[in-house]
Amino acid sequence: MPVLVMKFGGTSVATLDRIRRAAKRVGVEVAKGYDVIVIVSAMSGETNKLVGFVEETSPLFDAREYDAVVSSGENVTAGLMALTLQEMDVPARSWQGWQVPVKTTNAHANARIEEIPTDNISAKFGEGMKVAVVAGFQGISPEGRITTLGRGGSDTTAVAFAAAFGAERCDIYTDVDGVYTTDPRICDKARKLDKIAFEEMLELASLGAKVLQTRSVELAMRYKVRLRVLSSFEEQSDEAGTLVCDEEEIMESNVVAGVAHSRDEAKMTLVSVADRPGIASAIFTPLAEAGVNVDMIVQNISEEGHTDMTFSCPTNQVARAEKAMKDAQKNGSIDFQEIIADEGVCKISVVGIGMRSHTGVAAKMFQVLAKEGINIKVITTSEIKISVLIDRKYMELAVQALHDAFDLDKAA
Amino acid sequence: MPVLVMKFGGTSVATLDRIRRAAKRVGVEVAKGYDVIVIVSAMSGETNKLVGFVEETSPLFDAREYDAVVSSGENVTAGLMALTLQEMDVPARSWQGWQVPVKTTNAHANARIEEIPTDNISAKFGEGMKVAVVAGFQGISPEGRITTLGRGGSDTTAVAFAAAFGAERCDIYTDVDGVYTTDPRICDKARKLDKIAFEEMLELASLGAKVLQTRSVELAMRYKVRLRVLSSFEEQSDEAGTLVCDEEEIMESNVVAGVAHSRDEAKMTLVSVADRPGIASAIFTPLAEAGVNVDMIVQNISEEGHTDMTFSCPTNQVARAEKAMKDAQKNGSIDFQEIIADEGVCKISVVGIGMRSHTGVAAKMFQVLAKEGINIKVITTSEIKISVLIDRKYMELAVQALHDAFDLDKAA
Repeated sequence: MPVLVMKFGGTSVATLDRIRRAAKRVGVEVAKGYDVIVIVSAMSGETNKLVGFVEETSPLFDAREYDAVVSSGENVTAGLMALTLQEMDVPARSWQGWQVPVKTTNAHANARIEEIPTDNISAKFGEGMKVAVVAGFQGISPEGRITTLGRGGSDTTAVAFAAAFGAERCDIYTDVDGVYTTDPRICDKARKLDKIAFEEMLELASLGAKVLQTRSVELAMRYKVRLRVLSSFEEQSDEAGTLVCDEEEIMESNVVAGVAHSRDEAKMTLVSVADRPGIASAIFTPLAEAGVNVDMIVQNISEEGHTDMTFSCPTNQVARAEKAMKDAQKNGSIDFQEIIADEGVCKISVVGIGMRSHTGVAAKMFQVLAKEGINIKVITTSEIKISVLIDRKYMELAVQALHDAFDLDKAA
Repeated sequence: MPVLVMKFGGTSVATLDRIRRAAKRVGVEVAKGYDVIVIVSAMSGETNKLVGFVEETSPLFDAREYDAVVSSGENVTAGLMALTLQEMDVPARSWQGWQVPVKTTNAHANARIEEIPTDNISAKFGEGMKVAVVAGFQGISPEGRITTLGRGGSDTTAVAFAAAFGAERCDIYTDVDGVYTTDPRICDKARKLDKIAFEEMLELASLGAKVLQTRSVELAMRYKVRLRVLSSFEEQSDEAGTLVCDEEEIMESNVVAGVAHSRDEAKMTLVSVADRPGIASAIFTPLAEAGVNVDMIVQNISEEGHTDMTFSCPTNQVARAEKAMKDAQKNGSIDFQEIIADEGVCKISVVGIGMRSHTGVAAKMFQVLAKEGINIKVITTSEIKISVLIDRKYMELAVQALHDAFDLDKAA
C-alpha cells in the first residue's frame, strides 16, 4: 500500500470536535487505499501551559526535565486521535516517540532526528492496521530519555516519517489554506500559490512566513518529500492547499514567487573599526556567544585602515549586542569609535527560483522602492533572494508596491 | 544509604506552590541521609479531565489508548518535581514508568506490577543523585505499551518501590493527617491512631475508608513495607501521621481498632429458593457475570426443601441484580417465590486484631445496638471484623455508640 503522512497542528486538534473532523479527513485518505501515518501536535495552548509551568518552576531549567514535561501534550492527542479513528471503525493505534522509537541526538529541547526504524509500524500495517498515530515533536535520546525537537517540531516529525517510509506525500494540516505570495493581512491582493519550490519555501520560512518550520522544509528538500500545506477547517479536494515540491514539478512559475517581510529588525553599525585580518571574526564570535541572531552583514569600504561594519538582528537583542561589543572593546579584542543602533527598520525580501535565469530583478526592486520614495539602508542577496532593510513605516507600502510590480496577483 | 519512599497524592501536587512545599519535605529527608524515591500523582483534576476526554471520544474505549492518554498527567508532575528539587540544589531526576521500567501485566487500565528492576535508579544513587522522582500509577506491558494500575494506583506504585528497594518506610502524603478510629465527620470523638496493623488497615480500606487503596495495603502486608499516612499540609515530625505496620510493632492496642461504615448498601432476599446442592453457585454466578459486587451472604435455615437467600450489594446495583435473578428464573437455572430489595440499609463494622484473643466483642456490639433500639438485619464475621446491616437512619447513632462503648477515644 502507498503510505501517506498527515500532520495536524495544535489548532486542528484543539477540541474533541476538531479531532473528529481531522479523523474524518484521515478516513477519506484510508478509503482511497493509503496506509496513513498521522502526526499530531498537542491541543493548542497545552504546550504553552506546560512551558509556563517549567519556566515558573525553574528559570534555568534542566532541559531533560523540560522535555519530559512538555512532550506530554502530544501523547494525549495521539491517544485521543487513535480512539476517534477506532470509533469510526478505522483500525488505528497510537505511538509515543520512544515506542517507535524516534531516535534523536541528546540536544534536549532542540534535538535532531537521527533515525526512524520502520519495522514496528510497517509490521502493524501488514497485520491490517490502517493508521499509525504518532505523537509529534518528541523522540528518545541515546541515553533513553525523552527529547523534543524545538517549537514547531511536529512539522519536522512529519517530514522525517514521510522520508523514512517513502511516503507519496506529507500533508500538513494547519489553520491557513496554503502558502501565499505575501502576507494577506498587509496586502489584499495576496494570492495562494498552487505550487512552490523547496528552495523558495525555505527562504520564505526563514524570512518569517510562519506556515512551516524552516527545519522541516530543509529536511523535505534533502529527501525530496512532497509537502502539501492545507487547511483543516475547509472541505478539501486533492488539489487543495499549496504543494511544496521539487522545482522540476513546477512547469511554469513567476520569476518572483513571493514577497516576505520581517517587522522587528534593528540595524547596528560599528563606526570606524580597525580593518585588519580577523576583525569580522573578532566582532561576530562574541555576538554569537551572547546569543545574538545576526542576520545581514555589510562591510563598507575601508579608509585609512578603518571601516564601518553594519549588521542586523532582532530588536529585542539590541541591548545584548551592545553589551557584547562594549565588553569586547574593554578587553581589547576590537576597537571602534561608536556603536549606532537603528531600531526602526524592517526587512523586505523578494524570493524566486526564476532569479537564477532572469536578470534585472534587483534593479526592478530598487526602482519600485525609489519610485515610492523609500530609502534602502542595507542590501543583501542570495541566488534566489534579495533582501533590503528600510524604515519600518514603509513596510506595508513596500510590500504592496513590489507585489504589484512583479504581477504576483496573477498566476504564471 | 537507607532508602525512603515518599508518595504525594493529587491534592499535594495540585499547584506549583504545593509541589514546592512537597519538595521541601523531601529535602528534609535527604538532609537526614536518605536516598529518596518520590512517587507523584497527577495534579488534582488532571486525570479526571483526561478520563473525561477518553469517555467522550469513545464510550467503549480501547483500554490501551486510555492508558496512553490518562498516564500523561503523572509525567508532568514528575518532571516539575525534579525541577523543583534541582532549584533547591537537591540532585534529582524524573523517571516515567517505562524508563524504570515498571513491568506490569497487560491488563490495561487495571494492570498489576510484576517486577521493578532497581539497577537504573540504584546506579544513579551511586553517582550522587539524591532523589528519583517516579511517575506513579503507570507501567509498561510485555508488549511495550503503557499500562495504568487503576484509580489510586500511585499508592500501589509507592509500596511496590518500597518493597523493591528494601526501603526503611513508605510515607504516603495526602490531605488527611492519618487513620482515624472512625470517620470524624460523623463522630466528633474520632481519634487519630498512631499505629495500626496491616490486617486492620486492610479491613478498614475495603470497608470504605478512603485513605489508602486496598491493593497497596495488601502489597505492604505481603512485603512487610512500613507505611506511614500523613498530611502534606502540616509541618511534620518523625512521629506524625499513622504508621501502618506489622502487628509485632504494636505493643499495646485496643481490642477494637476502629468502627467503619458504608452508607449505600442494599439488602436483597430471594424468598423460598429450592435448597439443593449447587444452588448458591446457580445464584451467584449470574450475579458475578452481571457485574454485581456481592458483599455479605446469608443463607437461612431450610424448611421443606426451601430456604431464603439474602445478600447485600451497593444500592446502584440493585436493578442489575434483580434483572440477573429474573433472567436466571426464566431460563430455569433457579426458582424462587419473590425477590425483595431493601435499599435503606447501611453496613457498620468493628475491626481489630485484638478480637483474635479477646472474646465477647460480638456480644458487646449486639448489646450496644440493642440498647439503642437498633434492629440488626444481617450479621457476618471474620477473624478480626464483625459487620452488621442496619437501617440507614441509625448509621450515625450506631457509630457513635460503638465508638463510646469500645473506648476508642482513649489510647490503649
